Amino acid sequence: MEPIDLLIDARWIIPVEPDQRVLERHAIAVNNGRIVALLPTTEARARFAAREHLQRPNHVLIPGFVNAHTHAAMSLLRGVADDLPLEAWFGQRIWPLEQRWVSAEFVRDGSELAYAEMLLAGITCVADWYFYPEESAQVAAQMHLRACIGAPIADAPAPWSRGADDYLSRGLALHDEWLDHPLITTALGPHSPYLVSDATFERIRIYADELDAMVMIHLHESQAEIAQSIAVHGVRPIERLRRLGLLSPRLIGVHFVQADGADIAMAAQAGMSLVHCPESNLKLGNGVAPIAAMLDAGLNVALGTDGAASNNDLDLMGEMRLAALLAKGSSRDPTVVNAATALRMATLNGGRALGLDSEIGSLVPGKWADMCCVDLDNPATLPVYSPLAQLVYAASRAQVSDVWVAGKHLVMDGQLTRFDPQRLRQHAARWSERIAALIERVA
Amino acid sequence: MEPIDLLIDARWIIPVEPDQRVLERHAIAVNNGRIVALLPTTEARARFAAREHLQRPNHVLIPGFVNAHTHAAMSLLRGVADDLPLEAWFGQRIWPLEQRWVSAEFVRDGSELAYAEMLLAGITCVADWYFYPEESAQVAAQMHLRACIGAPIADAPAPWSRGADDYLSRGLALHDEWLDHPLITTALGPHSPYLVSDATFERIRIYADELDAMVMIHLHESQAEIAQSIAVHGVRPIERLRRLGLLSPRLIGVHFVQADGADIAMAAQAGMSLVHCPESNLKLGNGVAPIAAMLDAGLNVALGTDGAASNNDLDLMGEMRLAALLAKGSSRDPTVVNAATALRMATLNGGRALGLDSEIGSLVPGKWADMCCVDLDNPATLPVYSPLAQLVYAASRAQVSDVWVAGKHLVMDGQLTRFDPQRLRQHAARWSERIAALIERVA
Repeated sequence: MEPIDLLIDARWIIPVEPDQRVLERHAIAVNNGRIVALLPTTEARARFAAREHLQRPNHVLIPGFVNAHTHAAMSLLRGVADDLPLEAWFGQRIWPLEQRWVSAEFVRDGSELAYAEMLLAGITCVADWYFYPEESAQVAAQMHLRACIGAPIADAPAPWSRGADDYLSRGLALHDEWLDHPLITTALGPHSPYLVSDATFERIRIYADELDAMVMIHLHESQAEIAQSIAVHGVRPIERLRRLGLLSPRLIGVHFVQADGADIAMAAQAGMSLVHCPESNLKLGNGVAPIAAMLDAGLNVALGTDGAASNNDLDLMGEMRLAALLAKGSSRDPTVVNAATALRMATLNGGRALGLDSEIGSLVPGKWADMCCVDLDNPATLPVYSPLAQLVYAASRAQVSDVWVAGKHLVMDGQLTRFDPQRLRQHAARWSERIAALIERVA
Repeated sequence: MEPIDLLIDARWIIPVEPDQRVLERHAIAVNNGRIVALLPTTEARARFAAREHLQRPNHVLIPGFVNAHTHAAMSLLRGVADDLPLEAWFGQRIWPLEQRWVSAEFVRDGSELAYAEMLLAGITCVADWYFYPEESAQVAAQMHLRACIGAPIADAPAPWSRGADDYLSRGLALHDEWLDHPLITTALGPHSPYLVSDATFERIRIYADELDAMVMIHLHESQAEIAQSIAVHGVRPIERLRRLGLLSPRLIGVHFVQADGADIAMAAQAGMSLVHCPESNLKLGNGVAPIAAMLDAGLNVALGTDGAASNNDLDLMGEMRLAALLAKGSSRDPTVVNAATALRMATLNGGRALGLDSEIGSLVPGKWADMCCVDLDNPATLPVYSPLAQLVYAASRAQVSDVWVAGKHLVMDGQLTRFDPQRLRQHAARWSERIAALIERVA
């Protein structure tokens, strides 16, 4: 008998690779945080002697969700600015509140709250991108959540930085600090085409090439962004980035709502990834990204929640369902973005966007055991003809029973195992008192 | 001290009427199933001696949700037909399965499963419309769920009926049977313009006028429906109904995705109600109903889940959020359908569509105590700046802690109080075995 750390018998396992595969009455074997094997339950019992052997008889076991775009600490600004015009949302609410309140403490507390929400929702990896990224990285590592931490870069000063030079040196320091950490990776994060100059983009390109670093950018989010780029630079933002040498498989474009055929072809040619944030795009009135066309062009499309100030939840299962529904509705074709494609976008495509697809995103021997169980024994998901359809079209994050990151059991019976929720309540209450006073002043 | 049945202290109460009102640290007093008063907690304690006094210190208390369109028993077909073209969805999956399996027993078991799912999601009133409506009515009454039960009507025979005469006489019998029941009302339900002849519509109009009965119809759901009507009748479906004298405040048009300015004006002029089913409309590839324009025209727009074979959950909170997001995204205006409007669509507008707005849909003294509590003490809904925004944009149905219909406590701590979930599991398992065999044959 082969000794291992963990064996889980699940009613169903959907490994994501190969596509459409649903295994019934299989087990997954885990050792030293990595997947050893997927095999029929009876064979698993004969082969492995597991220190921990779990039964999940009504559950579907899947790779953990990858939230490929969020601003975690903005959880503390959840619900401060709804139903407002974009300019008022940012100029009268979000930006004044950020200038007044964002600090290392704010980012620690807000990241903790957001990471707790995400772990409970089956998210095992997050691309997080906000001021004070060194704080977010610390919190993620402490909570044992896998994270790609983006260092924001812009030309203008902000709560965390005095300007482009300062942003860049802080981003490089972050990169050096977390090199070779098993859970934390980093990325350079130029905010958007409209907040970053050509000169700064050129420096980002040089550093990214030297360090082989990921680069994340908000790209083609709104019509105003496109119009501004054409007015100032004479070309659409993606063409400007191409001329600046930024397009590459290491580039992650977030949103890509305003994308025509030429934009999509250019992104596909570069082999870059796009992150679709459907709830945020709808809620801010930006529209619907043409993901059916993007997938047809061979683009890697991942999913993100965006921050809680524009969503307002951090629920990747919700984004997964909405992505599938919106693609069908906007193309008038119910066959596009089927359940398997939606699940792959929410897992493996996210891993690929972050340069981690050889390590996470599917249940394949050798990858990290980043995974979650969803309990389908619920009136909302009975009967089960297709666990894949139930997962994508009917189940909710409240049905996530277990979550593991690198084999560590972080959520059990729908509860965090290593974290006192009372602490989150206290922190949230403290911040809401401080911030509510200011909202009333600016409202 | 005034003796009453029930007093609930809630951290927040959103009564829906008046619009935008959020009461803090108020209580609601209930007696004989009806609301007696809403008042500050301290005053309530001085005035009422309640047999039952509940504390909900982290909760928002709201009117129960009204699901203004579903086919409850189709819960047993959840997930049998996803990602298929519309013709295959209906012709190769849904219709063959219905012809083979739909029976009084199927409808009893499927309705029970769906009603359990809906009660747990805070839905206190449902417009349900399927074959064997007498079975659904019985199940709803037994479970103490408020329901408007539609009797289906079409010209062609179906599992429940031999044709138009038979449908009509069964519909009238249903109407007579449930007259004056405190929870159950009924409606005539001509399936759609394309399955009902002018002659049958004329008889429906006569009966509806005589009985003052509600009429529900699938209306302007797909482009194909519009094209068929123009080809056969020379006019769009709503104009055909107008000529047949069917348009009235008693008419409930379901879907209304394909609605131009003239259609909307005609519906508004008639004072009819529309039911928006955004998830179903997207999932079947029909598109997005123009609800911002419908609301601007003064139309009463309610929300529905549609059946579980085209959604696939029965979650009105999900429809409420999606309705708000889609309206913003499709109109490119984040200010349309604000949180208060979305909540009113999900409650009071539903009551009005079903002719019940003097009895339910808002927390107003004299109305039935149909209500639910949502627990906001959850990482996903902290901090709370605006309970209304948290409810609409961040909370999920899993946070519904309590549900009452006419003052009866049907869900407590997120569990059904009068129902054994084991029974649902057994029934669902039995049906899924029978049906799965047939799916494999037709697949």
